[in-house]
Amino acid sequence: MIIPVLRWLSPPAGPAIELLDQTRLPAQEAIVTCADVPALVDAISRLVVRGAPLLGVAGAYGVALAAAGGGDVRAAAAAISSARPTAVNLAWGVGRALAAYERALEICGPEPGQAAARAALAEAHQIAAADAAASAAMAAHGLELVPPGARILTHCNTGRLVSAGEGTAFAVILAAHRAGRLAQLWVDETRPLLQGSRLTAYEAGRAGIPHAVLADGAAASLLAAGQVDLVMTGADRIAADGSVANKVGTYGLAVLARHHGVPFVVVAPESTVDADTPDGTAIPVEQRPAQEVVTLAGQLVAPAGTAAYNPAFDVTPPALITAIVTELGVIQPVTAGNLRVLGAGSGRFAAPRATADVER
Amino acid sequence: MIIPVLRWLSPPAGPAIELLDQTRLPAQEAIVTCADVPALVDAISRLVVRGAPLLGVAGAYGVALAAAGGGDVRAAAAAISSARPTAVNLAWGVGRALAAYERALEICGPEPGQAAARAALAEAHQIAAADAAASAAMAAHGLELVPPGARILTHCNTGRLVSAGEGTAFAVILAAHRAGRLAQLWVDETRPLLQGSRLTAYEAGRAGIPHAVLADGAAASLLAAGQVDLVMTGADRIAADGSVANKVGTYGLAVLARHHGVPFVVVAPESTVDADTPDGTAIPVEQRPAQEVVTLAGQLVAPAGTAAYNPAFDVTPPALITAIVTELGVIQPVTAGNLRVLGAGSGRFAAPRATADVER
Repeated sequence: MIIPVLRWLSPPAGPAIELLDQTRLPAQEAIVTCADVPALVDAISRLVVRGAPLLGVAGAYGVALAAAGGGDVRAAAAAISSARPTAVNLAWGVGRALAAYERALEICGPEPGQAAARAALAEAHQIAAADAAASAAMAAHGLELVPPGARILTHCNTGRLVSAGEGTAFAVILAAHRAGRLAQLWVDETRPLLQGSRLTAYEAGRAGIPHAVLADGAAASLLAAGQVDLVMTGADRIAADGSVANKVGTYGLAVLARHHGVPFVVVAPESTVDADTPDGTAIPVEQRPAQEVVTLAGQLVAPAGTAAYNPAFDVTPPALITAIVTELGVIQPVTAGNLRVLGAGSGRFAAPRATADVER
Repeated sequence: MIIPVLRWLSPPAGPAIELLDQTRLPAQEAIVTCADVPALVDAISRLVVRGAPLLGVAGAYGVALAAAGGGDVRAAAAAISSARPTAVNLAWGVGRALAAYERALEICGPEPGQAAARAALAEAHQIAAADAAASAAMAAHGLELVPPGARILTHCNTGRLVSAGEGTAFAVILAAHRAGRLAQLWVDETRPLLQGSRLTAYEAGRAGIPHAVLADGAAASLLAAGQVDLVMTGADRIAADGSVANKVGTYGLAVLARHHGVPFVVVAPESTVDADTPDGTAIPVEQRPAQEVVTLAGQLVAPAGTAAYNPAFDVTPPALITAIVTELGVIQPVTAGNLRVLGAGSGRFAAPRATADVER
């Protein structure tokens, strides 16, 4: 299967995973080929591949890669899962493919040949296909929340580069653009790694969406000037109480949106919801190297040796979130109960399914 | 007179103004020499010299430079004043030196020789000396607001690089450090021009202050984690109602500080208060080129041609400001009345002087 940012290579070229190197965009469209699990773990750690939904897909293909190689698949799965701690989708995708692999082992016995590896790969393909479908469903549900003539402010990158489909928040933005409802997209540059200016501006430009980037610190004055009708972001993990971990800077935007009476909407697939994480305080937040802050585009921008506080994510409490959009529908208001009811379709909760428009 | 960042050169080396090029810090300590007004206007526009108090000093020396050159001093003064629109100190310093020049012209008649030029220069020297004294007074007054063991978050750069003394907010931070009250300085990197990571980290490092830089978007999670006791910034213009224009990102910090119950304190000399600007909406906010956001050192960090929203400043309403510290004392709560009463010493208001600790 070919998706814009991740491609599984079968033998004889593979087994391997080809990744579009997101650290080099927009200057270069370079490909990184991961022929084994350590190479994939390195690519995930360096953010060659990134974004919650795509990490789920990449994790599953990583297990398929390990299974095809015939080594210790369980150890490989653990290594991939722990490459980044915050986005729960990574561990979820790994877990799904590993479970498929182990079910096949059980059925086929101790000498399964390539049957178990094929099962892991089939599961990865299925996750990718489901992610594309989820993306379309999120776009449709999210569009209901976009008023005509909307000026939307977004943070980080949530489009084709993070998904097997058109993404999460960006998929909604694309749908709004196609429906003629989007007047302007404001793109937070998203320091330190500039996913907004590097990646979202790249995707917006390709899609013909009117857009402008801004320093993250300028969002407040844009809101004060009445230039924003809606703030919309993705999520890396949603706790059972509706707390949302997302790219650092998201929480500040949520506080500012509330201060200015502007809706703050999160768009993420059900695989981002982690029922095992009770609340925001239980979400592990990845601390990344100081170098990301004290250098910009590879150049030192602070005195050598300067220390940095560099959490990759922050946590927004449910009280500041107007709505969460998943492929199953819109959760509004954001409460543990509403999350649980809507999430029934994912098979992770015991409650009966509440909506009919499930695309899985 | 020699100050760390601006030096007046008398003949035969001058007349000229030597500036430490702040665009090249911390990598290089380069000097830019301005032998005429167009060179100074260019240096001010490019932020070779920057920061509200220092702009007042530079503006006054600029008039002295024009007067020494013998051209149209009034036109030169207008050109310098309009090099940057938001920091009122620039026009104030220019106006002070121009008034001294014109008084001397009146006294000496139409052929004043160098007498009027000497008067303008004397006024510039006096402004620089007063700024150094004001800095010390702000430090003393501001220290009263710093609790023991304080962890202070600051934005942009407000130290020796913006002043003939130790600065504004940074002078208070230095005083707190010397008094043993400062546990940690958090430095917002302050995109797009990185005055925090380039300049404040440089000054903090030289002063031995424990500090760490952070992406502007990470300030919210630092506040949420209870790691900040006080937010302290400078100002570029304070309207008569107490609204504060300062580096873009300041207003967002003020909203976040309020949300987390953390005091937000502004430190600025009286010359920053503009009685002619009634409120925040009347403050002109400089819009700067998109290039500052989409490039770094000539390198694109967004697709070529990407538009940007790039206001240099934002405006914080008085209701979000816990206190304003000037050389005359502490204004708390921040109201038009309190600003007017304390500002009496500056001769800009009709009300009688309210405090005795005036250092002018």
